[in-house]
Amino acid sequence: MQQTTLDQLNAADKAGFVAALGDIFEHSPWVAEAAAEARPFPTLAALLAAMQEAVRKAGAARQTELIKAHPDLAGKAARAGKITADSIAEQTSAGLDRLSEEEFATFHSLNDAYRDKFGIPFVICVRRHSKASILRQFEHRLTNTTDAERAAAVTEIIRIAALRLDQHVGGPDRLPVHGRLSTHVLDTHSGRPASGVDIDLMELDGSEAHLVERTITNADGRTDKPLISGRPLPIGDYELRFDVVDYFARCHVPMADPPFLGIIPIRFSIAEPEGHYHVPLLASPWSYTTYRGS
Amino acid sequence: MQQTTLDQLNAADKAGFVAALGDIFEHSPWVAEAAAEARPFPTLAALLAAMQEAVRKAGAARQTELIKAHPDLAGKAARAGKITADSIAEQTSAGLDRLSEEEFATFHSLNDAYRDKFGIPFVICVRRHSKASILRQFEHRLTNTTDAERAAAVTEIIRIAALRLDQHVGGPDRLPVHGRLSTHVLDTHSGRPASGVDIDLMELDGSEAHLVERTITNADGRTDKPLISGRPLPIGDYELRFDVVDYFARCHVPMADPPFLGIIPIRFSIAEPEGHYHVPLLASPWSYTTYRGS
Amino acid sequence: MQQTTLDQLNAADKAGFVAALGDIFEHSPWVAEAAAEARPFPTLAALLAAMQEAVRKAGAARQTELIKAHPDLAGKAARAGKITADSIAEQTSAGLDRLSEEEFATFHSLNDAYRDKFGIPFVICVRRHSKASILRQFEHRLTNTTDAERAAAVTEIIRIAALRLDQHVGGPDRLPVHGRLSTHVLDTHSGRPASGVDIDLMELDGSEAHLVERTITNADGRTDKPLISGRPLPIGDYELRFDVVDYFARCHVPMADPPFLGIIPIRFSIAEPEGHYHVPLLASPWSYTTYRGS
Amino acid sequence: MQQTTLDQLNAADKAGFVAALGDIFEHSPWVAEAAAEARPFPTLAALLAAMQEAVRKAGAARQTELIKAHPDLAGKAARAGKITADSIAEQTSAGLDRLSEEEFATFHSLNDAYRDKFGIPFVICVRRHSKASILRQFEHRLTNTTDAERAAAVTEIIRIAALRLDQHVGGPDRLPVHGRLSTHVLDTHSGRPASGVDIDLMELDGSEAHLVERTITNADGRTDKPLISGRPLPIGDYELRFDVVDYFARCHVPMADPPFLGIIPIRFSIAEPEGHYHVPLLASPWSYTTYRGS
Repeated sequence: MQQTTLDQLNAADKAGFVAALGDIFEHSPWVAEAAAEARPFPTLAALLAAMQEAVRKAGAARQTELIKAHPDLAGKAARAGKITADSIAEQTSAGLDRLSEEEFATFHSLNDAYRDKFGIPFVICVRRHSKASILRQFEHRLTNTTDAERAAAVTEIIRIAALRLDQHVGGPDRLPVHGRLSTHVLDTHSGRPASGVDIDLMELDGSEAHLVERTITNADGRTDKPLISGRPLPIGDYELRFDVVDYFARCHVPMADPPFLGIIPIRFSIAEPEGHYHVPLLASPWSYTTYRGS
Repeated sequence: MQQTTLDQLNAADKAGFVAALGDIFEHSPWVAEAAAEARPFPTLAALLAAMQEAVRKAGAARQTELIKAHPDLAGKAARAGKITADSIAEQTSAGLDRLSEEEFATFHSLNDAYRDKFGIPFVICVRRHSKASILRQFEHRLTNTTDAERAAAVTEIIRIAALRLDQHVGGPDRLPVHGRLSTHVLDTHSGRPASGVDIDLMELDGSEAHLVERTITNADGRTDKPLISGRPLPIGDYELRFDVVDYFARCHVPMADPPFLGIIPIRFSIAEPEGHYHVPLLASPWSYTTYRGS
Repeated sequence: MQQTTLDQLNAADKAGFVAALGDIFEHSPWVAEAAAEARPFPTLAALLAAMQEAVRKAGAARQTELIKAHPDLAGKAARAGKITADSIAEQTSAGLDRLSEEEFATFHSLNDAYRDKFGIPFVICVRRHSKASILRQFEHRLTNTTDAERAAAVTEIIRIAALRLDQHVGGPDRLPVHGRLSTHVLDTHSGRPASGVDIDLMELDGSEAHLVERTITNADGRTDKPLISGRPLPIGDYELRFDVVDYFARCHVPMADPPFLGIIPIRFSIAEPEGHYHVPLLASPWSYTTYRGS
Repeated sequence: MQQTTLDQLNAADKAGFVAALGDIFEHSPWVAEAAAEARPFPTLAALLAAMQEAVRKAGAARQTELIKAHPDLAGKAARAGKITADSIAEQTSAGLDRLSEEEFATFHSLNDAYRDKFGIPFVICVRRHSKASILRQFEHRLTNTTDAERAAAVTEIIRIAALRLDQHVGGPDRLPVHGRLSTHVLDTHSGRPASGVDIDLMELDGSEAHLVERTITNADGRTDKPLISGRPLPIGDYELRFDVVDYFARCHVPMADPPFLGIIPIRFSIAEPEGHYHVPLLASPWSYTTYRGS
């Protein structure tokens, strides 16, 4: 899909509108077609609401069709490139394109179990999850009733649509689909922001950790950009690693040999993809405090 | 060596005294012989001082002999069982009997470089170190002058002797050769000690971690025994892992899903083997503080 | 009453037993008389239980008599010296002998209102309360029903008796009637206990504060004795004042002028007279943490 | 003086320029006259620099005249209204118009001692100080040499001038003469900002405290406006009082009776009038942390 604006969408003819938004709902331009009637939309939220209403009114059969239009997660279609560009980017964002053979087998068997039980593919708004969290959701949702699960699938489809709208429709008016993860390092030895502290943000997956972001604090003890922003925060387990020992050494603070604190790891989990997580560190060479701030 | 007491040592004939303490200094009963004259000893510290004085008075040549009586660290003699039982136990305590081939090669090459430069084996009081710390010391001491290094070797031999005396001579009078590592978990959500918190103490060796102690907090939020006691604390890097999420779940504290804090890792280093390290955790489900206490 | 021991009480004839314990229950030697039959008592708790049982079995009329045997708080009898020595000491402990005219009038009018409503004097175990807390209890208990209030009075009489027994009967076996308030100061700037920190413990009474204890931390950052021990902790409002600025100045720690932190006040309330309150301070010149510990 | 702008000052004729800025330096329009030549000024800082240069070049005699043009602090001229409107407002800001007779006598005697020693009035940029801090400065500066003290007086006059310029010359370009005091309350019991917490900021003067600002936290746990801003922070002692007990009660958090923490007092001093002081509170009902943040 091309980048567009709400003004262009409101001004376009119906065909243009549908062409622009046909893939907001996977392979289902009929949703855009139905929503086109409700133009003009004063806000992006109003456009999303109209599309959501179109899905609701379409009834059970078409909803099932809509669900079935989605590819399996980490499935053969994805491997063969037979899914929308958005779907590819989404699955990539959670690392579903880099599965080990064992993980691939796990997904394959969960997909089969899910289709056997519910007759539809497993749909989830991948950008709101880490790989580990997708697997937990998968296992959990397999225990649902058919009705609960169809409702869950539609909810996820709306979340996917909201993120696709947010990406494809530019302008100052935004949907509340982004989270933010930030930090701040205070030096309680000297009573000032700690600048120049190297920070690694790791995503944890069982015993493995992979680097999400490497950054450094500025003169105010903050990072120039949030650690994660402009997207939902993937539900999952994380570790911030603060290199305070280099910082205090540069400040010529007397320390033990080896120093009592070296790299400080702060391990935490994100549960609200659209939330604001502020995870600060107050540290001296002998003590530290962290908390969920705002 | 057999277990004995200061009273027995003071009462023994000279041969008995030397038989009892002949291996306090590796393969060097002459130290015990010299110290025997100074009996009776009011304290274990007085006995150690007499032995230290004997070494000092013996002069450079015999000191060199004493140093040379020590085996290489992780050397062939150790592998072949040709060292004192104490030396075996000491090297085992730091994991020197479980080296990978690569580590064995590193020690081998350091031993060679050290002997080439100084003409003596590298002596270190192994019980005061982790394997990583021994390697750091090895590399650091290779940069010493010959005189400084001979002095360092004698200091280490006295430390080894003090620990051997402490082990072989029973009774209430002790030498200050032990450290202590303890913890305490306070629940700042409910304002009381956190009991039943599972704690793992890991020793860190680069990217590897191995379990030193697995324990659990009692009704007072402490562990029944210190995490390490009755021995020097090996200089090295450690991580305490506190399972606060299980604790708060048992207390029916409302938490996010997944909870913000799960296993809390506190990473720290020990620099004083004879020190008291108290590393407490004050935690709510959203915040924690740690510090070096006493 | 004279100091005695449980052994002496068990061995005494009945008259001696009653003479020794006749005033444990105010002007009511019949309680001791009834309990004397149940000798010997293996523990102080068993003796208290026997006395409590004697009160229970005595029935409503004698219980009323027992309640009426108590003086008014801060009443004319106290001013005229017509109450037991224990009662005098107890009222003095909460400052009821040092009331302003206004406070005296308040107690007088509460005493009258209470006697009018319930026909008995207001009885409370004064040693478990501050003056402010006694007034709060007085006002609260005036809202009780007669039955609830008679039960409350008997409970307080048992508490008074327990404290009198604890005071008059010596020996290693104690009743759990004491609380403990302690503190600990950690210097997070240097990672060690803060020694030589001056501490004032103030009791707060509205906008007034009066000194309960002035002390100083020892080499371990603790006080040689608890701030309060060997008695119940009076329910009330307190403030610990830590003179950290003198401490950090003596340590030659660079500080602002004037220093950011000078005297650190920690204000807290005690609700459990028999509890252990540990109120530590972790401080750098720029940051501090406190909590209820154990 | 009227409010003006830098553009108007640059465009005015010399008489207009001097009329507008004649009292920036107390009763000394010659400073404005001298600076007028250097127009146009690209920034307010350039204008201030030109005036400062005029003072510097004027030499010792005129500088003494300039110093003498200032009124005594809390002096008779102030009481009689014979000083500039700016001087009145400045002295009022530090409470010098509300002195007790005793304080008035203290100032009177310090003024006399100062004039006796240095032959000039004591000049200080009052807006950067509390009353207590002015007295400390007064006593301290009385110990200076005459040369050091004349330099100190000129420095203070430049500070006064900078603040007067900042007040009288409008526009987006500002001088760095303001400080900021802010706070933030985090609820570590629930892991979110604490909203609706009543906060009193008190200025402490010995054993007295007077209210500077009464405010309340918003949904983000902050106050809508900084506690102090738009002016220098008066050097002095302060106490923030956070009513956490009302907050936690509204959140239905279980607490002791009386609650362990009620009003939390954070006592601190400000040393840098142009600094940013952020003094946050992280609190559960049983624990809290504060620090100088940024």
